[in-house]
Amino acid sequence: MKIKNKFFSKQKNIYLSDIYNVLGKKKLKENIKINNISDLDRASKNDISFLNSLKYIEVLKQSKAIYVITNEKYSGLINKYCKPVIVNNVLKSVSIVTNLFYPEALNDAVDFLAKEPKNKNFKKVKFGSNVLIGKNVDIGLNTIIGHNTIIESNVSIGSKCVIGNNVLIKNSIIGNNVRILDGAVLGKKGFGFLPDKKNNLRYPHIGMVVIEDNVEIGCNNTIDRGSLSNTVIGKNTFIDNQVHVAHNVKIGENCIITGQVGFAGSSNIGKNVMIGGQAGISGHLKIGNNVQIGGGSGVVKNIPDNSKVMGYPAKDIRKFLKDNK
Amino acid sequence: MKIKNKFFSKQKNIYLSDIYNVLGKKKLKENIKINNISDLDRASKNDISFLNSLKYIEVLKQSKAIYVITNEKYSGLINKYCKPVIVNNVLKSVSIVTNLFYPEALNDAVDFLAKEPKNKNFKKVKFGSNVLIGKNVDIGLNTIIGHNTIIESNVSIGSKCVIGNNVLIKNSIIGNNVRILDGAVLGKKGFGFLPDKKNNLRYPHIGMVVIEDNVEIGCNNTIDRGSLSNTVIGKNTFIDNQVHVAHNVKIGENCIITGQVGFAGSSNIGKNVMIGGQAGISGHLKIGNNVQIGGGSGVVKNIPDNSKVMGYPAKDIRKFLKDNK
Amino acid sequence: MKIKNKFFSKQKNIYLSDIYNVLGKKKLKENIKINNISDLDRASKNDISFLNSLKYIEVLKQSKAIYVITNEKYSGLINKYCKPVIVNNVLKSVSIVTNLFYPEALNDAVDFLAKEPKNKNFKKVKFGSNVLIGKNVDIGLNTIIGHNTIIESNVSIGSKCVIGNNVLIKNSIIGNNVRILDGAVLGKKGFGFLPDKKNNLRYPHIGMVVIEDNVEIGCNNTIDRGSLSNTVIGKNTFIDNQVHVAHNVKIGENCIITGQVGFAGSSNIGKNVMIGGQAGISGHLKIGNNVQIGGGSGVVKNIPDNSKVMGYPAKDIRKFLKDNK
Repeated sequence: MKIKNKFFSKQKNIYLSDIYNVLGKKKLKENIKINNISDLDRASKNDISFLNSLKYIEVLKQSKAIYVITNEKYSGLINKYCKPVIVNNVLKSVSIVTNLFYPEALNDAVDFLAKEPKNKNFKKVKFGSNVLIGKNVDIGLNTIIGHNTIIESNVSIGSKCVIGNNVLIKNSIIGNNVRILDGAVLGKKGFGFLPDKKNNLRYPHIGMVVIEDNVEIGCNNTIDRGSLSNTVIGKNTFIDNQVHVAHNVKIGENCIITGQVGFAGSSNIGKNVMIGGQAGISGHLKIGNNVQIGGGSGVVKNIPDNSKVMGYPAKDIRKFLKDNK
Repeated sequence: MKIKNKFFSKQKNIYLSDIYNVLGKKKLKENIKINNISDLDRASKNDISFLNSLKYIEVLKQSKAIYVITNEKYSGLINKYCKPVIVNNVLKSVSIVTNLFYPEALNDAVDFLAKEPKNKNFKKVKFGSNVLIGKNVDIGLNTIIGHNTIIESNVSIGSKCVIGNNVLIKNSIIGNNVRILDGAVLGKKGFGFLPDKKNNLRYPHIGMVVIEDNVEIGCNNTIDRGSLSNTVIGKNTFIDNQVHVAHNVKIGENCIITGQVGFAGSSNIGKNVMIGGQAGISGHLKIGNNVQIGGGSGVVKNIPDNSKVMGYPAKDIRKFLKDNK
Repeated sequence: MKIKNKFFSKQKNIYLSDIYNVLGKKKLKENIKINNISDLDRASKNDISFLNSLKYIEVLKQSKAIYVITNEKYSGLINKYCKPVIVNNVLKSVSIVTNLFYPEALNDAVDFLAKEPKNKNFKKVKFGSNVLIGKNVDIGLNTIIGHNTIIESNVSIGSKCVIGNNVLIKNSIIGNNVRILDGAVLGKKGFGFLPDKKNNLRYPHIGMVVIEDNVEIGCNNTIDRGSLSNTVIGKNTFIDNQVHVAHNVKIGENCIITGQVGFAGSSNIGKNVMIGGQAGISGHLKIGNNVQIGGGSGVVKNIPDNSKVMGYPAKDIRKFLKDNK
């Protein structure tokens, strides 16, 4: 399902020569129009993408992207699949090019357009006191919005949802029959920046948070939006209190995530996954379907389908229990 | 101390035949009136209860409940102590019967009756700006309530309490001289539901949160109310920031719980227990009196009185230190 | 940099005899004026300080304090460096003396002076809806303050800062170009108290939170103020969501602290330190410069400069990886 991102307005008429220009590369003669900047797996033919780790070489082979920002060392390996745009610092260059396409992506901390809602604009929606709703917000029938909750501009919320009190939702698309409990913060930019001794450079995050139907998000959760791709919570997944989901994480359907679990950025979690309290999942991992992860585990590598793991670092649960008898 | 639960109005005149009916069991001739649904240890003679694990067989033996929902496999074992009501899925059946008694227990996400308080209704109570107070709320003398805080209907708060800013309190009974710090969420339903591939069924939670005298609850804590029994924080227990206490947990008197600790559901913690930062306590455990649990520990089994444990899984602290020299 | 603490008004004209008096010690003939109560490393000549652990003996040797509250057992060791004021319970005595100097330090839970800001008082500051600002608050040019945010009296915020929504800031001094994200709570008193079976005694916290330039504080963070000294986040340090920083912790410049990390009280973290998600740092530790701490680690002892550690308890990362192959 391709969901339109209405949150950041994209500059039109960006040419490869403009990109070369902001990256400080030598002038280009060719005049090729570039449509967007995207992850390898979501890129269209006219998008520019990037590769920063050999982990993603298989994704690159399938990618539609022709131009790919990368560094010298990977350029030889990948130039039979695409045209490498060679730079010194891939992430910094991606940040610069993202800014070129989405110049306003960094200034989204507070939506000053959010105001008290007018009931005539929202049919069969019940609002608590002191709710603030931004511009172009869609809310489905029979949804309720708790006190002090802020729904920022362009957010879309389905029908029969229950949004609790003191919730903040930005840059998010919410399905039907979703519950978002008190104090949750959805759609804030991810914890991504380019370290610099004098003043770290914040990284633009132009992805969204996508919450599918029948999901429950616990109290005081923080679910950050993606950098280029989206952070996704699959349908009928339930998440307990104080869980942190970093940018670009994708959680499949029918998962059960208990209290205080944390996900570092860009991991993919399968379907029917159960995760016990306080477990942590490192970044850029692939957790298979039907996986069970014991409470307190620290998962630092990929987990195949149908596994049960526990421990820090997490290993087969029988081995964990045996080692700890 | 038996505290009256005013939060959910109970249906009267429920007969065993009604219960058999909603459970899809064959019609009953007998016309026995059932007063309530309760945990085994709190059930009165005319209540229906349930047993879903042999862990609770000793509790059953002491229980006053005559009718007990259970499954085929336990029915033989328990029928000398009570009359088993045999079902396929105990928790689902308990959920259905709870709904029969408390049909509104699932619709409590937002209290739309909460309004700005009128000072004449609250003597010697000091309110911040933008406070919302529900119907039938009791607040004792010399209590202060911070800005943006929401106290939902039927909540009771003692005297000399300090409730911070941005706090949400529902389904809770708070003693005297209690401090609840900024951003805490008390009394939300527990993370209990019946998994279903298409759409998980939420489980009604008709218990309360009971906070005894002189307790301190830290910032951004989440303390969920019980399902059938209550979640209890014993007197003079102090809890640091970002702690999560799941449904039905009972914490004794004079405990010290430091930052980011998490409790899974239904565990019992003794008196004078000290728990270091980020430790996790699994569900359905019994932690004795005077126990000390080191920071970062993962406790997965019962801990006897006067023990000091540490590690993941937690073990005797001397063994932990020796093993990790 | 010595930053003036404007948050608690200090009693003047406190004499050593007054201190002896509140501590229940026998009358003093001398009439020495004591200026303040301070940590050993920040004390001026006319301040009283305290020593409760031999860990701090080297600090004592450098201290300017002449009078030092301590117990019998350390008095012999330290009386060549200072004049010990011998008591049974050092922390309780420090608490009593702190209360003598700062009698209002315990009543700071809610700032009832905080009101809707008048724009004329704040040039080029943009406020969201429902913001509350206390007395004597300074906010620099081009700073924005999100909806529902509370800035308590005497707080100072620099220029070009972005303060998110639902933020609470008290007892804090914030530099320039700082971002404090939604739901963060800064400057609450630390989790310090004197255990007492009937009713724990809360400990006065007269320190501040100091946030230096270019810092980012994540969503739902809790950063407690110091007891006698300050809690400090060094310039250009970035902190992810749901991190807890206890009282008196000092974090150096250019650190990267990822999600759900927890710091117990009074630890010192060097410069350029990177800490992975969910790691915990025990209290009173010294973590050197350029240290890397793996996600999920539990750090229970000092870590020298330039080390990479991981594990629970944390050890050299190569050893951790080898032990867990």
